[in-house]
Amino acid sequence: MNLPIGVIDSGVGGLTVAKEVARQLPKETMIYIGDTARCPYGPRTVEEVRRFTWQMVEQLLQWDIKMLVIACNTATAVTLEELQAQLDIPVVGVIRPGAIAALNETSSGEIAVIGTEGTIHSGAYPETIRAIQGEQVTVHNLACPPFVPLVEQNRTSKQDAYKIVEETLRPLQQYRYDTLILGCTHYPILKAVIQEVVGGGVSVISSGQETAREMSTILQHNGIHNRSEEAPAHIFYTSGEVLPFVEKVERWMTITTPDVRQISFLSSTMNHD
Amino acid sequence: MNLPIGVIDSGVGGLTVAKEVARQLPKETMIYIGDTARCPYGPRTVEEVRRFTWQMVEQLLQWDIKMLVIACNTATAVTLEELQAQLDIPVVGVIRPGAIAALNETSSGEIAVIGTEGTIHSGAYPETIRAIQGEQVTVHNLACPPFVPLVEQNRTSKQDAYKIVEETLRPLQQYRYDTLILGCTHYPILKAVIQEVVGGGVSVISSGQETAREMSTILQHNGIHNRSEEAPAHIFYTSGEVLPFVEKVERWMTITTPDVRQISFLSSTMNHD
Repeated sequence: MNLPIGVIDSGVGGLTVAKEVARQLPKETMIYIGDTARCPYGPRTVEEVRRFTWQMVEQLLQWDIKMLVIACNTATAVTLEELQAQLDIPVVGVIRPGAIAALNETSSGEIAVIGTEGTIHSGAYPETIRAIQGEQVTVHNLACPPFVPLVEQNRTSKQDAYKIVEETLRPLQQYRYDTLILGCTHYPILKAVIQEVVGGGVSVISSGQETAREMSTILQHNGIHNRSEEAPAHIFYTSGEVLPFVEKVERWMTITTPDVRQISFLSSTMNHD
Repeated sequence: MNLPIGVIDSGVGGLTVAKEVARQLPKETMIYIGDTARCPYGPRTVEEVRRFTWQMVEQLLQWDIKMLVIACNTATAVTLEELQAQLDIPVVGVIRPGAIAALNETSSGEIAVIGTEGTIHSGAYPETIRAIQGEQVTVHNLACPPFVPLVEQNRTSKQDAYKIVEETLRPLQQYRYDTLILGCTHYPILKAVIQEVVGGGVSVISSGQETAREMSTILQHNGIHNRSEEAPAHIFYTSGEVLPFVEKVERWMTITTPDVRQISFLSSTMNHD
Protein backbone atom coordinates (compact mmCIF):
# COMPACT_ATOMS: atom_id res chain seq x y z
CA MET A 1 0.00 0.00 0.00
CA ASN A 2 1.66 3.17 -1.17
CA LEU A 3 0.09 5.73 1.17
CA PRO A 4 2.54 7.68 3.32
CA ILE A 5 3.28 7.13 7.00
CA GLY A 6 2.47 10.11 9.23
CA VAL A 7 5.08 11.12 11.81
CA ILE A 8 4.39 13.78 14.45
CA ASP A 9 6.64 15.45 16.99
CA SER A 10 6.76 18.55 19.15
CA GLY A 11 9.65 19.80 16.99
CA VAL A 12 12.83 18.42 15.45
CA GLY A 13 13.53 15.58 17.91
CA GLY A 14 11.34 13.16 15.98
CA LEU A 15 13.79 13.47 13.09
CA THR A 16 15.98 10.98 15.00
CA VAL A 17 13.11 8.50 14.60
CA ALA A 18 12.44 9.51 10.99
CA LYS A 19 16.11 8.90 10.20
CA GLU A 20 15.84 5.30 11.43
CA VAL A 21 12.59 4.82 9.51
CA ALA A 22 14.32 6.00 6.32
CA ARG A 23 17.18 3.57 6.98
CA GLN A 24 15.15 0.49 7.94
CA LEU A 25 12.13 1.11 5.68
CA PRO A 26 13.74 2.70 2.62
CA LYS A 27 10.65 2.15 0.46
CA GLU A 28 8.22 4.02 2.71
CA THR A 29 7.24 7.68 2.30
CA MET A 30 6.80 9.90 5.37
CA ILE A 31 4.86 13.07 6.02
CA TYR A 32 6.45 14.60 9.12
CA ILE A 33 4.91 17.38 11.20
CA GLY A 34 7.10 19.12 13.79
CA ASP A 35 5.24 21.57 16.03
CA THR A 36 8.36 23.68 16.46
CA ALA A 37 6.38 26.85 17.23
CA ARG A 38 4.93 25.31 20.39
CA CYS A 39 7.95 23.18 21.39
CA PRO A 40 8.85 21.99 24.03
CA TYR A 41 5.80 19.92 25.05
CA GLY A 42 7.53 18.63 28.20
CA PRO A 43 6.44 21.40 30.59
CA ARG A 44 2.92 21.78 29.09
CA THR A 45 -0.29 20.55 30.70
CA VAL A 46 -1.76 17.21 29.69
CA GLU A 47 -4.69 19.07 28.13
CA GLU A 48 -2.39 21.17 25.93
CA VAL A 49 -0.38 18.15 24.79
CA ARG A 50 -3.63 16.34 23.92
CA ARG A 51 -5.01 19.27 21.95
CA PHE A 52 -1.80 19.99 20.00
CA THR A 53 -1.31 16.31 19.19
CA TRP A 54 -4.88 15.89 17.93
CA GLN A 55 -4.45 18.96 15.69
CA MET A 56 -1.48 17.34 13.96
CA VAL A 57 -3.26 13.98 13.76
CA GLU A 58 -6.41 15.46 12.22
CA GLN A 59 -4.30 17.20 9.59
CA LEU A 60 -2.52 13.96 8.69
CA LEU A 61 -5.79 12.02 8.50
CA GLN A 62 -7.13 14.58 5.99
CA TRP A 63 -4.09 13.84 3.81
CA ASP A 64 -4.70 10.06 4.12
CA ILE A 65 -1.98 8.08 5.86
CA LYS A 66 -1.70 4.33 6.47
CA MET A 67 0.07 4.47 9.83
CA LEU A 68 0.72 7.08 12.53
CA VAL A 69 3.98 7.36 14.48
CA ILE A 70 4.02 9.53 17.60
CA ALA A 71 7.74 10.33 17.54
CA CYS A 72 7.56 12.27 20.81
CA ASN A 73 7.66 10.65 24.23
CA THR A 74 5.53 13.32 25.92
CA ALA A 75 2.77 13.00 23.32
CA THR A 76 3.04 9.18 23.41
CA ALA A 77 2.63 9.17 27.19
CA VAL A 78 -0.48 11.36 27.00
CA THR A 79 -2.25 10.24 23.81
CA LEU A 80 -1.11 6.78 22.60
CA GLU A 81 -3.95 4.78 24.15
CA GLU A 82 -6.72 7.09 23.01
CA LEU A 83 -5.27 7.37 19.49
CA GLN A 84 -4.96 3.58 19.23
CA ALA A 85 -8.57 3.23 20.38
CA GLN A 86 -10.00 5.90 18.09
CA LEU A 87 -8.08 5.64 14.80
CA ASP A 88 -8.63 2.93 12.20
CA ILE A 89 -4.92 2.79 11.29
CA PRO A 90 -2.05 1.36 13.38
CA VAL A 91 -0.59 3.88 15.83
CA VAL A 92 2.99 3.42 17.05
CA GLY A 93 4.53 5.26 20.00
CA VAL A 94 8.16 5.51 21.09
CA ILE A 95 7.88 4.36 24.71
CA ARG A 96 7.28 0.60 24.37
CA PRO A 97 10.08 0.11 21.80
CA GLY A 98 12.59 1.90 24.07
CA ALA A 99 11.42 -0.11 27.08
CA ILE A 100 11.80 -3.41 25.21
CA ALA A 101 15.28 -2.51 23.96
CA ALA A 102 16.34 -1.63 27.51
CA LEU A 103 14.93 -4.86 28.94
CA ASN A 104 16.89 -6.83 26.34
CA GLU A 105 20.04 -4.89 27.23
CA THR A 106 20.15 -4.73 31.04
CA SER A 107 22.07 -7.33 33.02
CA SER A 108 21.87 -5.68 36.44
CA GLY A 109 18.09 -5.19 36.28
CA GLU A 110 18.46 -1.47 37.05
CA ILE A 111 17.37 0.88 34.27
CA ALA A 112 17.48 4.70 34.31
CA VAL A 113 15.05 6.75 32.23
CA ILE A 114 15.53 10.42 31.39
CA GLY A 115 12.93 12.56 29.65
CA THR A 116 10.85 15.71 29.83
CA GLU A 117 8.85 16.56 32.94
CA GLY A 118 5.65 15.49 31.16
CA THR A 119 7.02 12.06 30.26
CA ILE A 120 8.63 11.40 33.63
CA HIS A 121 5.59 12.53 35.63
CA SER A 122 3.31 10.35 33.51
CA GLY A 123 5.09 7.25 34.82
CA ALA A 124 4.72 5.72 31.36
CA TYR A 125 8.15 4.03 31.28
CA PRO A 126 8.01 2.27 34.67
CA GLU A 127 4.43 1.25 33.91
CA THR A 128 5.32 -0.18 30.50
CA ILE A 129 8.36 -2.00 31.87
CA ARG A 130 6.33 -3.48 34.74
CA ALA A 131 3.62 -4.63 32.33
CA ILE A 132 6.24 -6.54 30.32
CA GLN A 133 8.56 -7.90 33.01
CA GLY A 134 6.61 -7.85 36.26
CA GLU A 135 8.55 -6.59 39.27
CA GLN A 136 11.98 -7.94 38.35
CA VAL A 137 13.41 -4.62 37.17
CA THR A 138 14.06 -1.36 39.04
CA VAL A 139 13.50 1.88 37.13
CA HIS A 140 15.07 5.22 38.16
CA ASN A 141 13.43 8.32 36.63
CA LEU A 142 14.87 11.76 36.06
CA ALA A 143 13.34 14.75 34.28
CA CYS A 144 15.94 16.79 32.34
CA PRO A 145 14.23 20.07 31.35
CA PRO A 146 17.41 21.79 30.03
CA PHE A 147 18.07 19.18 27.30
CA VAL A 148 15.35 20.01 24.72
CA PRO A 149 16.28 23.73 24.58
CA LEU A 150 19.96 22.74 24.10
CA VAL A 151 19.01 20.66 21.07
CA GLU A 152 16.51 23.12 19.59
CA GLN A 153 19.19 25.86 19.88
CA ASN A 154 21.87 23.65 18.30
CA ARG A 155 24.04 23.75 21.43
CA THR A 156 24.99 20.07 21.36
CA SER A 157 28.80 20.15 21.20
CA LYS A 158 30.82 18.98 24.16
CA GLN A 159 31.89 22.56 24.82
CA ASP A 160 28.33 23.89 24.88
CA ALA A 161 26.57 21.02 26.61
CA TYR A 162 28.89 19.00 28.86
CA LYS A 163 28.53 21.06 32.03
CA ILE A 164 24.73 21.25 31.82
CA VAL A 165 24.38 17.54 31.02
CA GLU A 166 26.72 16.57 33.85
CA GLU A 167 24.87 18.70 36.43
CA THR A 168 21.45 17.54 35.25
CA LEU A 169 22.34 13.85 35.41
CA ARG A 170 24.05 14.07 38.82
CA PRO A 171 21.03 12.67 40.77
CA LEU A 172 21.45 9.36 38.91
CA GLN A 173 24.98 8.82 40.25
CA GLN A 174 23.66 7.15 43.40
CA TYR A 175 22.18 4.23 41.41
CA ARG A 176 23.82 1.17 39.88
CA TYR A 177 21.98 1.25 36.56
CA ASP A 178 23.63 -0.33 33.51
CA THR A 179 21.13 0.90 30.90
CA LEU A 180 19.91 4.44 30.23
CA ILE A 181 16.80 5.09 28.14
CA LEU A 182 16.82 8.39 26.25
CA GLY A 183 13.11 8.90 26.90
CA CYS A 184 12.84 11.95 24.66
CA THR A 185 13.49 11.90 20.92
CA HIS A 186 15.55 15.08 21.16
CA TYR A 187 18.14 13.43 23.38
CA PRO A 188 19.85 11.21 20.77
CA ILE A 189 21.27 14.45 19.32
CA LEU A 190 23.06 14.85 22.69
CA LYS A 191 24.02 11.19 22.85
CA ALA A 192 27.79 11.64 22.53
CA VAL A 193 27.87 14.05 25.48
CA ILE A 194 25.45 11.96 27.56
CA GLN A 195 27.52 8.80 26.93
CA GLU A 196 30.67 10.61 28.04
CA VAL A 197 28.98 11.79 31.25
CA VAL A 198 27.53 8.38 32.23
CA GLY A 199 30.60 6.41 31.12
CA GLY A 200 31.19 3.50 28.78
CA GLY A 201 29.75 0.91 31.19
CA VAL A 202 26.20 2.18 30.61
CA SER A 203 24.24 1.22 27.44
CA VAL A 204 22.47 4.29 26.13
CA ILE A 205 19.21 3.43 24.33
CA SER A 206 17.60 5.62 21.64
CA SER A 207 14.12 4.42 20.83
CA GLY A 208 14.35 5.29 17.12
CA GLN A 209 15.88 2.01 15.99
CA GLU A 210 13.39 -0.08 17.95
CA THR A 211 10.46 2.05 16.84
CA ALA A 212 11.33 1.57 13.18
CA ARG A 213 11.61 -2.17 13.79
CA GLU A 214 8.16 -2.23 15.40
CA MET A 215 6.77 -0.30 12.43
CA SER A 216 8.33 -2.79 10.04
CA THR A 217 6.65 -5.70 11.83
CA ILE A 218 3.24 -4.03 11.77
CA LEU A 219 3.46 -2.92 8.13
CA GLN A 220 4.35 -6.49 7.17
CA HIS A 221 1.78 -8.26 9.32
CA ASN A 222 -1.00 -5.92 8.22
CA GLY A 223 0.08 -6.32 4.60
CA ILE A 224 0.38 -2.54 4.14
CA HIS A 225 4.09 -2.18 3.31
CA ASN A 226 4.99 -0.37 0.11
CA ARG A 227 5.61 -2.74 -2.80
CA SER A 228 6.43 -0.15 -5.48
CA GLU A 229 10.01 0.50 -6.55
CA GLU A 230 9.76 4.31 -6.70
CA ALA A 231 12.08 6.21 -4.37
CA PRO A 232 10.08 7.84 -1.57
CA ALA A 233 9.74 11.64 -1.44
CA HIS A 234 9.30 12.70 2.17
CA ILE A 235 7.54 15.96 3.05
CA PHE A 236 8.29 17.84 6.26
CA TYR A 237 5.99 20.42 7.85
CA THR A 238 7.01 22.78 10.64
CA SER A 239 4.81 25.17 12.57
CA GLY A 240 7.92 27.33 13.09
CA GLU A 241 10.47 28.82 10.69
CA VAL A 242 11.34 26.84 7.59
CA LEU A 243 15.06 27.59 7.18
CA PRO A 244 16.34 26.33 10.55
CA PHE A 245 14.20 23.23 10.05
CA VAL A 246 15.70 22.59 6.60
CA GLU A 247 19.14 22.87 8.14
CA LYS A 248 18.32 20.26 10.81
CA VAL A 249 16.82 17.80 8.31
CA GLU A 250 19.93 18.17 6.15
CA ARG A 251 22.33 17.71 9.04
CA TRP A 252 20.59 14.91 10.98
CA MET A 253 18.92 12.93 8.21
CA THR A 254 21.59 13.67 5.58
CA ILE A 255 18.92 14.54 3.02
CA THR A 256 19.95 17.30 0.63
CA THR A 257 17.41 20.06 -0.15
CA PRO A 258 14.53 18.41 1.72
CA ASP A 259 10.93 19.43 0.99
CA VAL A 260 10.09 21.50 4.09
CA ARG A 261 6.83 23.49 4.25
CA GLN A 262 5.16 25.66 6.83
CA ILE A 263 1.94 24.74 8.60
CA SER A 264 -0.11 26.82 11.01
CA PHE A 265 -2.11 25.59 13.99
CA LEU A 266 -3.21 29.03 15.13
CA SER A 267 -6.94 28.55 14.57
CA SER A 268 -8.85 25.49 15.67
CA THR A 269 -9.59 24.61 12.05
CA MET A 270 -6.51 23.43 10.20
CA ASN A 271 -4.66 25.71 7.80
CA HIS A 272 -1.48 24.97 5.99
CA ASP A 273 0.50 26.69 3.27
CA MET B 1 -6.09 -12.88 26.25
CA ASN B 2 -4.88 -15.89 28.17
CA LEU B 3 -4.84 -18.54 25.43
CA PRO B 4 -1.46 -20.16 24.79
CA ILE B 5 0.91 -19.43 21.92
CA GLY B 6 1.61 -22.42 19.68
CA VAL B 7 5.23 -23.08 18.71
CA ILE B 8 6.19 -25.72 16.14
CA ASP B 9 9.54 -27.09 15.06
CA SER B 10 11.01 -30.10 13.31
CA GLY B 11 12.60 -31.11 16.63
CA VAL B 12 14.45 -29.45 19.49
CA GLY B 13 15.98 -26.48 17.61
CA GLY B 14 12.89 -24.35 18.16
CA LEU B 15 13.63 -24.49 21.90
CA THR B 16 16.21 -21.74 21.22
CA VAL B 17 13.27 -19.58 20.11
CA ALA B 18 11.03 -20.75 22.97
CA LYS B 19 13.77 -19.78 25.41
CA GLU B 20 13.77 -16.20 24.12
CA VAL B 21 9.96 -16.11 24.21
CA ALA B 22 10.04 -17.19 27.86
CA ARG B 23 12.59 -14.45 28.60
CA GLN B 24 10.97 -11.57 26.70
CA LEU B 25 7.32 -12.57 27.21
CA PRO B 26 7.39 -14.06 30.72
CA LYS B 27 3.60 -13.90 31.10
CA GLU B 28 2.77 -15.95 27.99
CA THR B 29 2.11 -19.70 27.97
CA MET B 30 3.45 -21.87 25.15
CA ILE B 31 2.42 -25.20 23.71
CA TYR B 32 5.46 -26.48 21.83
CA ILE B 33 5.42 -29.34 19.33
CA GLY B 34 8.76 -30.76 18.18
CA ASP B 35 8.49 -33.33 15.39
CA THR B 36 11.63 -35.12 16.58
CA ALA B 37 10.61 -38.44 15.03
CA ARG B 38 10.73 -36.99 11.52
CA CYS B 39 13.62 -34.52 12.06
CA PRO B 40 15.55 -33.16 10.16
CA TYR B 41 13.19 -31.41 7.74
CA GLY B 42 16.08 -29.86 5.78
CA PRO B 43 16.58 -32.68 3.24
CA ARG B 44 12.85 -33.45 2.85
CA THR B 45 10.72 -32.50 -0.14
CA VAL B 46 8.61 -29.36 -0.06
CA GLU B 47 5.50 -31.55 -0.07
CA GLU B 48 6.64 -33.47 3.03
CA VAL B 49 7.53 -30.28 4.92
CA ARG B 50 4.09 -28.85 4.06
CA ARG B 51 2.24 -31.97 5.16
CA PHE B 52 4.16 -32.39 8.44
CA THR B 53 3.80 -28.71 9.30
CA TRP B 54 0.06 -28.70 8.66
CA GLN B 55 -0.35 -31.77 10.91
CA MET B 56 1.22 -29.89 13.81
CA VAL B 57 -0.76 -26.73 13.05
CA GLU B 58 -4.10 -28.58 12.90
CA GLN B 59 -3.36 -30.17 16.26
CA LEU B 60 -2.59 -26.78 17.83
CA LEU B 61 -5.72 -25.21 16.36
CA GLN B 62 -7.82 -27.95 17.99
CA TRP B 63 -6.33 -26.96 21.34
CA ASP B 64 -7.10 -23.27 20.67
CA ILE B 65 -4.10 -20.95 20.40
CA LYS B 66 -3.96 -17.18 19.91
CA MET B 67 -0.77 -17.04 17.82
CA LEU B 68 1.38 -19.50 15.87
CA VAL B 69 5.17 -19.39 15.75
CA ILE B 70 6.96 -21.46 13.10
CA ALA B 71 10.23 -21.86 14.99
CA CYS B 72 11.86 -23.74 12.09
CA ASN B 73 13.44 -22.03 9.11
CA THR B 74 12.70 -24.86 6.67
CA ALA B 75 9.01 -24.89 7.60
CA THR B 76 8.89 -21.07 7.55
CA ALA B 77 10.36 -20.99 4.04
CA VAL B 78 7.80 -23.49 2.77
CA THR B 79 4.60 -22.65 4.66
CA LEU B 80 4.65 -19.12 6.15
CA GLU B 81 2.73 -17.40 3.39
CA GLU B 82 0.02 -20.02 3.10
CA LEU B 83 -0.41 -20.23 6.87
CA GLN B 84 -0.67 -16.43 7.16
CA ALA B 85 -3.27 -16.43 4.40
CA GLN B 86 -5.35 -19.30 5.76
CA LEU B 87 -5.30 -18.93 9.57
CA ASP B 88 -7.35 -16.37 11.49
CA ILE B 89 -4.57 -15.87 14.07
CA PRO B 90 -1.22 -14.08 13.62
CA VAL B 91 1.51 -16.37 12.26
CA VAL B 92 5.16 -15.51 12.91
CA GLY B 93 8.12 -17.09 11.13
CA VAL B 94 11.82 -16.95 11.95
CA ILE B 95 13.21 -15.73 8.63
CA ARG B 96 12.13 -12.07 8.52
CA PRO B 97 13.26 -11.36 12.12
CA GLY B 98 16.72 -12.81 11.42
CA ALA B 99 16.97 -10.86 8.16
CA ILE B 100 16.06 -7.59 9.88
CA ALA B 101 18.56 -8.16 12.70
CA ALA B 102 21.29 -8.84 10.12
CA LEU B 103 20.44 -5.73 8.11
CA ASN B 104 20.67 -3.64 11.28
CA GLU B 105 24.03 -5.21 12.09
CA THR B 106 26.00 -5.27 8.83
CA SER B 107 28.37 -2.43 7.95
CA SER B 108 30.01 -4.01 4.90
CA GLY B 109 26.70 -4.89 3.23
CA GLU B 110 27.78 -8.54 2.83
CA ILE B 111 25.74 -11.06 4.79
CA ALA B 112 26.24 -14.83 4.92
CA VAL B 113 23.33 -17.19 5.61
CA ILE B 114 23.72 -20.81 6.67
CA GLY B 115 20.83 -23.24 6.98
CA THR B 116 19.44 -26.59 5.91
CA GLU B 117 19.30 -27.55 2.24
CA GLY B 118 15.58 -26.86 2.21
CA THR B 119 15.96 -23.33 3.58
CA ILE B 120 18.93 -22.42 1.38
CA HIS B 121 17.39 -23.81 -1.80
CA SER B 122 14.15 -21.94 -1.13
CA GLY B 123 16.02 -18.63 -1.48
CA ALA B 124 13.85 -17.25 1.32
CA TYR B 125 16.61 -15.22 3.01
CA PRO B 126 17.96 -13.38 -0.06
CA GLU B 127 14.37 -12.76 -1.17
CA THR B 128 13.34 -11.34 2.19
CA ILE B 129 16.46 -9.18 2.43
CA ARG B 130 15.94 -7.84 -1.10
CA ALA B 131 12.30 -7.04 -0.36
CA ILE B 132 13.37 -4.92 2.62
CA GLN B 133 16.56 -3.26 1.35
CA GLY B 134 16.47 -3.43 -2.43
CA GLU B 135 19.76 -4.39 -4.06
CA GLN B 136 22.13 -2.72 -1.62
CA VAL B 137 23.13 -5.91 0.19
CA THR B 138 24.95 -9.04 -1.04
CA VAL B 139 23.87 -12.37 0.44
CA HIS B 140 26.07 -15.50 0.40
CA ASN B 141 24.24 -18.79 1.02
CA LEU B 142 25.55 -22.09 2.31
CA ALA B 143 23.68 -25.27 3.20
CA CYS B 144 25.19 -27.07 6.21
CA PRO B 145 23.57 -30.55 6.34
CA PRO B 146 25.85 -31.95 9.09
CA PHE B 147 24.82 -29.37 11.72
CA VAL B 148 21.30 -30.54 12.69
CA PRO B 149 22.42 -34.13 13.37
CA LEU B 150 25.28 -32.80 15.53
CA VAL B 151 22.76 -30.88 17.67
CA GLU B 152 20.13 -33.64 17.82
CA GLN B 153 22.88 -36.08 18.93
CA ASN B 154 24.20 -33.66 21.57
CA ARG B 155 27.62 -33.45 19.89
CA THR B 156 28.03 -29.69 20.31
CA SER B 157 31.27 -29.37 22.30
CA LYS B 158 34.35 -27.93 20.66
CA GLN B 159 35.96 -31.35 20.73
CA ASP B 160 33.04 -33.06 18.97
CA ALA B 161 32.07 -30.34 16.51
CA TYR B 162 34.97 -28.01 15.62
CA LYS B 163 36.40 -30.02 12.74
CA ILE B 164 33.02 -30.62 11.07
CA VAL B 165 31.95 -26.99 11.50
CA GLU B 166 35.26 -25.70 10.14
CA GLU B 167 35.11 -27.93 7.06
CA THR B 168 31.45 -27.18 6.38
CA LEU B 169 31.93 -23.39 6.58
CA ARG B 170 35.09 -23.36 4.43
CA PRO B 171 33.27 -22.22 1.22
CA LEU B 172 32.39 -18.93 2.97
CA GLN B 173 36.06 -18.01 3.50
CA GLN B 174 36.28 -16.40 0.06
CA TYR B 175 33.72 -13.71 0.99
CA ARG B 176 34.08 -10.53 3.05
CA TYR B 177 30.88 -10.89 5.06
CA ASP B 178 30.67 -9.22 8.47
CA THR B 179 27.35 -10.78 9.57
CA LEU B 180 26.33 -14.44 9.65
CA ILE B 181 22.68 -15.46 9.99
CA LEU B 182 22.12 -18.78 11.73
CA GLY B 183 19.27 -19.67 9.37
CA CYS B 184 18.27 -22.78 11.29
CA THR B 185 17.01 -22.75 14.87
CA HIS B 186 19.24 -25.71 15.76
CA TYR B 187 22.39 -23.74 15.02
CA PRO B 188 22.37 -21.42 18.08
CA ILE B 189 23.25 -24.54 20.11
CA LEU B 190 26.46 -24.67 18.06
CA LYS B 191 27.00 -20.91 18.29
CA ALA B 192 30.18 -20.97 20.40
CA VAL B 193 31.93 -23.29 17.94
CA ILE B 194 30.62 -21.40 14.89
CA GLN B 195 31.78 -18.07 16.36
CA GLU B 196 35.23 -19.52 16.98
CA VAL B 197 35.46 -20.76 13.38
CA VAL B 198 34.32 -17.51 11.72
CA GLY B 199 36.25 -15.25 14.12
CA GLY B 200 35.33 -12.37 16.37
CA GLY B 201 34.97 -9.89 13.51
CA VAL B 202 31.74 -11.54 12.33
CA SER B 203 28.42 -10.86 14.11
CA VAL B 204 26.54 -14.13 14.47
CA ILE B 205 22.75 -13.66 14.44
CA SER B 206 20.27 -16.06 16.06
CA SER B 207 16.74 -15.25 15.05
CA GLY B 208 15.22 -16.19 18.42
CA GLN B 209 15.66 -12.79 20.07
CA GLU B 210 14.25 -10.93 17.09
CA THR B 211 11.38 -13.38 16.68
CA ALA B 212 10.31 -12.91 20.30
CA ARG B 213 10.45 -9.14 19.79
CA GLU B 214 8.24 -9.40 16.70
CA MET B 215 5.79 -11.55 18.68
CA SER B 216 5.73 -8.96 21.46
CA THR B 217 4.82 -6.21 19.00
CA ILE B 218 2.02 -8.23 17.44
CA LEU B 219 0.57 -9.41 20.76
CA GLN B 220 0.48 -5.79 21.93
CA HIS B 221 -0.90 -4.24 18.75
CA ASN B 222 -3.58 -6.90 18.42
CA GLY B 223 -4.47 -6.48 22.10
CA ILE B 224 -4.01 -10.21 22.76
CA HIS B 225 -1.15 -10.19 25.29
CA ASN B 226 -1.74 -11.97 28.58
CA ARG B 227 -2.87 -9.63 31.34
CA SER B 228 -3.19 -12.19 34.16
CA GLU B 229 -0.53 -12.50 36.85
CA GLU B 230 -0.43 -16.31 36.94
CA ALA B 231 2.90 -17.91 36.11
CA PRO B 232 2.72 -19.67 32.74
CA ALA B 233 2.88 -23.48 32.57
CA HIS B 234 4.36 -24.48 29.22
CA ILE B 235 3.61 -27.88 27.70
CA PHE B 236 6.01 -29.59 25.30
CA TYR B 237 5.06 -32.35 22.86
CA THR B 238 7.53 -34.51 20.99
CA SER B 239 6.82 -37.08 18.30
CA GLY B 240 10.00 -38.87 19.41
CA GLU B 241 11.20 -40.14 22.77
CA VAL B 242 10.25 -38.18 25.86
CA LEU B 243 13.35 -38.54 28.04
CA PRO B 244 15.97 -37.07 25.67
CA PHE B 245 13.54 -34.22 25.00
CA VAL B 246 13.10 -33.53 28.74
CA GLU B 247 16.87 -33.42 29.06
CA LYS B 248 17.16 -30.84 26.26
CA VAL B 249 14.40 -28.61 27.66
CA GLU B 250 16.09 -28.71 31.05
CA ARG B 251 19.53 -27.93 29.67
CA TRP B 252 18.67 -25.27 27.07
CA MET B 253 15.68 -23.55 28.62
CA THR B 254 16.80 -24.07 32.24
CA ILE B 255 13.32 -25.29 33.19
CA THR B 256 13.35 -27.99 35.87
CA THR B 257 11.05 -31.00 35.39
CA PRO B 258 9.29 -29.62 32.32
CA ASP B 259 5.92 -31.04 31.24
CA VAL B 260 6.92 -33.10 28.18
CA ARG B 261 4.38 -35.40 26.52
CA GLN B 262 4.40 -37.67 23.50
CA ILE B 263 2.36 -37.05 20.36
CA SER B 264 1.95 -39.26 17.31
CA PHE B 265 1.50 -38.15 13.73
CA LEU B 266 1.42 -41.68 12.30
CA SER B 267 -2.20 -41.62 11.12
CA SER B 268 -3.72 -38.75 9.22
CA THR B 269 -6.13 -38.05 12.10
CA MET B 270 -4.39 -36.59 15.11
CA ASN B 271 -3.67 -38.72 18.18
CA HIS B 272 -1.89 -37.64 21.27
CA ASP B 273 -1.35 -39.15 24.69
